[in-house]
Amino acid sequence: MRSLEEHRAAILALVAPLPAERVAVAGSRGRVLARDVVAAVDLPGFDNSAMDGYAVRAADLDGASEATPVRLPVDGDIAAGDTTRHVLAPGHALRIMTGAPLPEGCDAVVPVELTDGGADTVEVRVEPEVGRFVRRQGEDVRTGDVVLRAGTLLGPGHVALMAAANVAQVEVHRRPRVAVVSTGDELVPVGSSLEHGQIVDSNSLMLEALVEAAGAEVAARVHLRDDADAVRAFLTAPDGDPDLLITTGGVSMGVYDTVKEVLTEVGGVEFVKVAMRPGMPQGCGAVAGGRVALVTLPGNPVSSFASFHVFVLPALRAMTGLDPADDGGFDAVAGEQWPVVREKVELTRVVEEAGVVRPSGGQGSHMLAALAEATALAMVPVGAAEVRVGDTVHCLPILGHHRDRG
Amino acid sequence: MRSLEEHRAAILALVAPLPAERVAVAGSRGRVLARDVVAAVDLPGFDNSAMDGYAVRAADLDGASEATPVRLPVDGDIAAGDTTRHVLAPGHALRIMTGAPLPEGCDAVVPVELTDGGADTVEVRVEPEVGRFVRRQGEDVRTGDVVLRAGTLLGPGHVALMAAANVAQVEVHRRPRVAVVSTGDELVPVGSSLEHGQIVDSNSLMLEALVEAAGAEVAARVHLRDDADAVRAFLTAPDGDPDLLITTGGVSMGVYDTVKEVLTEVGGVEFVKVAMRPGMPQGCGAVAGGRVALVTLPGNPVSSFASFHVFVLPALRAMTGLDPADDGGFDAVAGEQWPVVREKVELTRVVEEAGVVRPSGGQGSHMLAALAEATALAMVPVGAAEVRVGDTVHCLPILGHHRDRG
Repeated sequence: MRSLEEHRAAILALVAPLPAERVAVAGSRGRVLARDVVAAVDLPGFDNSAMDGYAVRAADLDGASEATPVRLPVDGDIAAGDTTRHVLAPGHALRIMTGAPLPEGCDAVVPVELTDGGADTVEVRVEPEVGRFVRRQGEDVRTGDVVLRAGTLLGPGHVALMAAANVAQVEVHRRPRVAVVSTGDELVPVGSSLEHGQIVDSNSLMLEALVEAAGAEVAARVHLRDDADAVRAFLTAPDGDPDLLITTGGVSMGVYDTVKEVLTEVGGVEFVKVAMRPGMPQGCGAVAGGRVALVTLPGNPVSSFASFHVFVLPALRAMTGLDPADDGGFDAVAGEQWPVVREKVELTRVVEEAGVVRPSGGQGSHMLAALAEATALAMVPVGAAEVRVGDTVHCLPILGHHRDRG
Repeated sequence: MRSLEEHRAAILALVAPLPAERVAVAGSRGRVLARDVVAAVDLPGFDNSAMDGYAVRAADLDGASEATPVRLPVDGDIAAGDTTRHVLAPGHALRIMTGAPLPEGCDAVVPVELTDGGADTVEVRVEPEVGRFVRRQGEDVRTGDVVLRAGTLLGPGHVALMAAANVAQVEVHRRPRVAVVSTGDELVPVGSSLEHGQIVDSNSLMLEALVEAAGAEVAARVHLRDDADAVRAFLTAPDGDPDLLITTGGVSMGVYDTVKEVLTEVGGVEFVKVAMRPGMPQGCGAVAGGRVALVTLPGNPVSSFASFHVFVLPALRAMTGLDPADDGGFDAVAGEQWPVVREKVELTRVVEEAGVVRPSGGQGSHMLAALAEATALAMVPVGAAEVRVGDTVHCLPILGHHRDRG
């Protein structure tokens, strides 16, 4: 039996970071940089005021205080966005707004709250330090600095930094395009009237949601009946020009396991048992003339869901230029005892609260209520026969379950 | 000065959960249920096999073992999706696939691995328990059960459960539509050639990314110059039919603070100082005849970013039917000392690693490099003059910075 890590390595060997494309910074949130980003301007772009107040020469206010205020003539205003290069005459002040460029000769700003706020003359009640409330050109970023490295997953703060650095477009990895295929004669579309023996095709909708939650695109969502010709046709020339194909079902020990049957005949795909529970029957390879990576997931919804997290998500991360070894996981403490199987990695659906995890209910691989309730998958390694209260367990967050948690 | 909590309460008083709309389960990921979801079918929908193997009566295999196998005639196959109601004759077996409906009279399944796998007759090497490898109708969910409660943020596991329960459409709260307005004559679009005194309008792109990362829709993204007529026109009749309007800039102590000037004249909006750093100058109210909630954020990018997390995000959560009091935060341990201001809540940009946080660099409210690097905002309460090594600090995850984390 193959280990979980060996099978993940086999899948990662099938994929590579996707090519770069240029996108506007405005639409770059959630994308991954394919190239370092270099500042096009200094930040700040010019010496400017950190406050609404008065641009002064500190030396002109020697000894100013509440008791002994100093009065200066005000020669005018400098608003934010004023493109004139003002000069501050010795012994004078200029009224200045937050973000407005400092006039030549100014070495400090006095906030309006520490003055009488006058427009023609101003009474200043403080002796400013040189440099006080002044933001210096380039003190945050200098033109030509690498401000973000390739491999960065772009969030709102990165968008702000790139835009401020006057970078209008960036190179990011193309989003993976994923075709999701559910197989099985028993499956009917949601909302159908179910005959005895039929079940709703929930897996394809679940996998679609997982693909999107992982930041990839769904190239196609297809249900195939257990018909070898139809399965062969799709797997050799999949719709939607996908980079990755995910199937569920048809890969177990049954005599109607069409995916396995067809792909064994077509070749290029290996079917293995992986030492994990749920999710033992797995497969991976390349189809469509070797151009499209393929991961075959088991048909049980919980198996398919857990397998997605440990096999497909790392592949999607690798394809977008992220580190597939970073599983986003966290260590938690078991809040109750539960049995696991010693020979396999056990992926227990758990609810995490304040660092403590508990199984979320029925753990059968067909148990969807407990799956929906779970917030994480506890990964219990091979060799343990149970998890005891107080044990530390490594947990994978369930994709898209909550909002981001940095 | 108003406390952060008081100002947040004032903003929350301006908003309410948005009306419900029906959406397909397939597109429901990321939405929030406006109504409980009730199962339309049992899960499982019928007694079925948990394994590929043979449907038997346990009593027919009394004493079967490796040493003393029992041979049964095989009357045929039951595939998944077979809608016939099969009957198992006493002393016989039927070959059955995972998920296929159990024949009448069957009370156990023997996995194919524990047999010779025969098609006409089968040699069974184990004495099965009654009920072994049988999934009972309704053991997970019963028709009419409430499977998900109103207020649930829908993830892939919820999509799977709802689809499997044959619920094709659900009622979710409408997504908030947010208009983002940056103000200031100094702002030019990203990619412009900058004159002395001009800066790129990065705030509107940052806020757009924050709104999207929060799961809301950007109804409009607009830059307004410091022109009272233009500001008045937009704020009284905003583009894009928004539910919420966010402005940045124009609300401080300056003489060109047009947003404040116009809204003071129009009325319905209060401008306050909030005891927080960064982000002291804040405002909120209702515009467009009281129909549109308004939050005015400071113009400094870091102030605006931090204010979004503590004021706008809770409002968006309330509008989508989520609990605004759930800040998604976590407690971490300070890995180094840093000074804070005693009279205000300090929102320090920090990097969190394995539960330990450290300030991410220059903390000036114009410092974007440190903002982009941060993964969380540490909220240091009023009354502390410093954070010491080992202190526990409550942290807000930065929206959209990483992928979901449970």
